[in-house]
Amino acid sequence: MQFDPNELVNEAIQQLQPYVPGKPEETLRRELGLEKIIKLASNETPLRLSDAVWERSAAALRDIMRYPDGSGFDLKRKLADRLGVTPDMITLGNGSNDVLLILAQAFAGPGREVLFSQYAFAVYPIAAATVGATAVVVPARDYAHDLMAIQEAITPHTRLIYLANPNNPTGTGFSDDDFLHFMEMAPLHCLVVLDEAYFEFAGHQSGIGLLTRFPNLVVTRTFSKAFGMAGLRLGYSVSSPQVAEILNRVRQPFNVNSVALATALAVLDDPNYVRDVVELNALGLKQLQAGLKTLDLACLPTEANFVTFHAGPKAGAIYDALLREGVIVRPLAGYDMPEYLRVSVGLDSENERFLSVLGDILKSQA
Amino acid sequence: MQFDPNELVNEAIQQLQPYVPGKPEETLRRELGLEKIIKLASNETPLRLSDAVWERSAAALRDIMRYPDGSGFDLKRKLADRLGVTPDMITLGNGSNDVLLILAQAFAGPGREVLFSQYAFAVYPIAAATVGATAVVVPARDYAHDLMAIQEAITPHTRLIYLANPNNPTGTGFSDDDFLHFMEMAPLHCLVVLDEAYFEFAGHQSGIGLLTRFPNLVVTRTFSKAFGMAGLRLGYSVSSPQVAEILNRVRQPFNVNSVALATALAVLDDPNYVRDVVELNALGLKQLQAGLKTLDLACLPTEANFVTFHAGPKAGAIYDALLREGVIVRPLAGYDMPEYLRVSVGLDSENERFLSVLGDILKSQA
Repeated sequence: MQFDPNELVNEAIQQLQPYVPGKPEETLRRELGLEKIIKLASNETPLRLSDAVWERSAAALRDIMRYPDGSGFDLKRKLADRLGVTPDMITLGNGSNDVLLILAQAFAGPGREVLFSQYAFAVYPIAAATVGATAVVVPARDYAHDLMAIQEAITPHTRLIYLANPNNPTGTGFSDDDFLHFMEMAPLHCLVVLDEAYFEFAGHQSGIGLLTRFPNLVVTRTFSKAFGMAGLRLGYSVSSPQVAEILNRVRQPFNVNSVALATALAVLDDPNYVRDVVELNALGLKQLQAGLKTLDLACLPTEANFVTFHAGPKAGAIYDALLREGVIVRPLAGYDMPEYLRVSVGLDSENERFLSVLGDILKSQA
Repeated sequence: MQFDPNELVNEAIQQLQPYVPGKPEETLRRELGLEKIIKLASNETPLRLSDAVWERSAAALRDIMRYPDGSGFDLKRKLADRLGVTPDMITLGNGSNDVLLILAQAFAGPGREVLFSQYAFAVYPIAAATVGATAVVVPARDYAHDLMAIQEAITPHTRLIYLANPNNPTGTGFSDDDFLHFMEMAPLHCLVVLDEAYFEFAGHQSGIGLLTRFPNLVVTRTFSKAFGMAGLRLGYSVSSPQVAEILNRVRQPFNVNSVALATALAVLDDPNYVRDVVELNALGLKQLQAGLKTLDLACLPTEANFVTFHAGPKAGAIYDALLREGVIVRPLAGYDMPEYLRVSVGLDSENERFLSVLGDILKSQA
């Protein structure tokens, strides 16, 4: 007998397409030998954390030979205070990716359906595939979630519905009223997972306020975007204590590292950082939208920290040309949006450089 | 309809018993108001990383608003050089726990059997349960893996075999010859996962040297023990490139944080740290074994950084009495070893304090 691991792998995993992350700066530096690189590909904030936060993170490194507090006691207590919930409603994850996957491990699986919108975050189909559940993709309307259509797609086999507000990679959102209506209609045999990764940039009410009314609602959040901690991996869900107890059973006991725990406490104590990130983002969005309009490129309406624009049939070539100039954006062919590119809001100078390089590329193609 | 998440959860998860970690120092401090606490419960090394390593970790914190390099390019290259393999044979995980679970996600599942020894690491049954596979526990011999019995337990449905050398929580190991013989007999429809979390403390040859001969072998390692990075969460597997490609498909794209990546590179550059940890451990093991012998307590033979000893029917009471004196060890009732306690090697003074407090407790019970 020959050893062929592909013969042995789970059926669900055989079809799994791995997540394609934004190109890291280092990779581009290696590949092209470029020095000056601007990364606007992964919806990170361009602002560094404050020195005061850094000092607390660096201090936590001193005891790094010890395991983290697997219960996340201090952070859950602080988050709970901040959000007006109780600590037993919070489940911490190694990024919100981890929490999204834990939800699928707990509640989806073979014979169960997981619903999400076309053009929604790539981790939803991966989570469904990883646990062998049936992914049901509901067509979007104008690239945005069609909540009515999602409601109609619910069957007795549906266990999880992932909704992102605002959504990545489109930036589109839905209204508080539409979501409330959705929850009122959603049957209790499905968990509705409201992914609020980009919440801080949008003007919506959080789903957290609806948790007491809808026990089948789970809200996920991340420290990777407005809280500037993408590299440390920290996200969480807020749910009923019963759901949280199940998720805590499934998660890896030390899924969150101790530096992430310490840094999150410090960022929550920082009175300015998140506000500065959100303000910078609002200005940057206007700058990018105005610049893209000048270049005659149509943008999807965005409520997040990035702009998705129609680059046309040459989107792939434009992406490559931007790369050669050291500007990394995100191609969306993997999202079935081959004519679109997504650009994250950077510093004023980075946004300007992106627009200027893009303008030159379009001229040279004309 | 009432909402009851326990009705909706996957069948496999309903039975899942969560991992019970060693009691964190902070928890004991809160509960008992104790100031001086010695934690010998989680097989951590008591030695801090060097200042040179700390500086590189702390520097990595400056760019923490960026996502990690999801491919772990630099670390995989350095590890591959060190281990005499190629980078495409390495899969990084959020602790080796993550890699052990990813292996189950990829290769186990409903209708498939996962084999491991009685008294083996608690994550193996959790991994099997999480993916809905059938856990087959093979009786141990004198608390150690019985490799012949494990071999005989293999069926056509077996897909994963977890072996730990040395094993946690017993400290026992098996010989290089016995393992070689095991691999020669192991059929190619099973992956054999050799968990070398405590490798550096033992005198064995690594399974990594056998990878070219046995394509169905996977070796896992961790930075949590001899490398002093438990709090940062980093482990990895070494396997055939084909198996690694599958594992990389299943793992979360940013499962390892950037500070862990940077710190691991720094520790690998440190010429002294791991050697110092291993030397301190050898001395501490002798100290603990001699002390426990003086107290007439029988120890299991250990090749790791902890000693598991027979505390008798009062083991639970002894554990509690140690706690009240601020000494945390690990009770093993959860491992079906209710009369045993496990103590990790600490600093010389910590080992001494443990032995002295334990002596007093035994006297007061006599």
